[in-house]
Amino acid sequence: MRYPNSARVYQKTSSHNTSRRGMSFEEDINQSNLYYLKQDLAVVHKKPTPVTIVKVSYPQRSAAKITEAYFKLPSTTDYNGIYKGKYLDFEAKECHSDKSFPFSSIHPHQVEHLRSVNRHGGIAFILLRMNIFNEDYLIKAEDFLEFYDSKKRKSLPYSWIQENGHLISFRLYAPVDYLPVVDKLYDL
Amino acid sequence: MRYPNSARVYQKTSSHNTSRRGMSFEEDINQSNLYYLKQDLAVVHKKPTPVTIVKVSYPQRSAAKITEAYFKLPSTTDYNGIYKGKYLDFEAKECHSDKSFPFSSIHPHQVEHLRSVNRHGGIAFILLRMNIFNEDYLIKAEDFLEFYDSKKRKSLPYSWIQENGHLISFRLYAPVDYLPVVDKLYDL
Repeated sequence: MRYPNSARVYQKTSSHNTSRRGMSFEEDINQSNLYYLKQDLAVVHKKPTPVTIVKVSYPQRSAAKITEAYFKLPSTTDYNGIYKGKYLDFEAKECHSDKSFPFSSIHPHQVEHLRSVNRHGGIAFILLRMNIFNEDYLIKAEDFLEFYDSKKRKSLPYSWIQENGHLISFRLYAPVDYLPVVDKLYDL
Repeated sequence: MRYPNSARVYQKTSSHNTSRRGMSFEEDINQSNLYYLKQDLAVVHKKPTPVTIVKVSYPQRSAAKITEAYFKLPSTTDYNGIYKGKYLDFEAKECHSDKSFPFSSIHPHQVEHLRSVNRHGGIAFILLRMNIFNEDYLIKAEDFLEFYDSKKRKSLPYSWIQENGHLISFRLYAPVDYLPVVDKLYDL
């Protein structure tokens, strides 16, 4: 027998559907940054998505409308700002595998950007959400680059992430509460 | 008598057409930042223009095309990065008047962003091109904010800019060579 509107009663029975975190990783980070900003703890913003604008129309009495544009490859990471007087820079990534995080998910430009921030004395890292394990990690750029440069593998194994990454706690107002981890790792 | 193609021999006789600088202020700053990046002096990038993307189409065998999007008000300044280990943040503006730079040209969010970067110990300033005089100035956020907060006027008079701003030199590879001015002003 088929129920009316059967699609509506269907529920996904994923064993990992217990996420404490509400939304996408990006939204969770944005919410954390907004909380930090309002508490005047740090000034960190996500950069806008880079697009190449080709055509704009100017309808009368209303806002300019972009009618043709394309996504551009980012030349830097998505987030940067200032914390305790220090320059802070990071890229946020989600990983849907339970085995490893593939390097193909991070653009070479972004890796080089992290390297150069690091060289200039900034605090550079990757925030990595392991979706299947419902875990968020902070991975220092130094540690990431060492493994990346060794060219041993084309991905970060989960075991490496557990050993070298630093777990980030969830807080209601800062769902990805990375600042306490930054304090500890960089002696701030 | 009218020459054929007369339009081609016509030359603009503006008395201020002697700009050493080639292109728009933004392009000149981008070129300077690119030079600094290649010389590994500083890592400073312009943030992408913020847009709200409404519709994207995915034509077969070609790149995703944005078919409806709108410009968003920026919540921060346009440029930030790291220089000598310090967080650097600035907004770039052009002024076409010879009298004053109107505060209406800079969004309140951007002013508050500069204030907050300043409070967190970052280096914050405005780069201002006075088009008519063919001059580029660096104005420290502190100085700007003091005048802005006094609410004496709704614009920065040119005389104030000359007195409190710091002239930036032109260099072939860095058309807006602001780093030497930063060195001097912030003891770097």
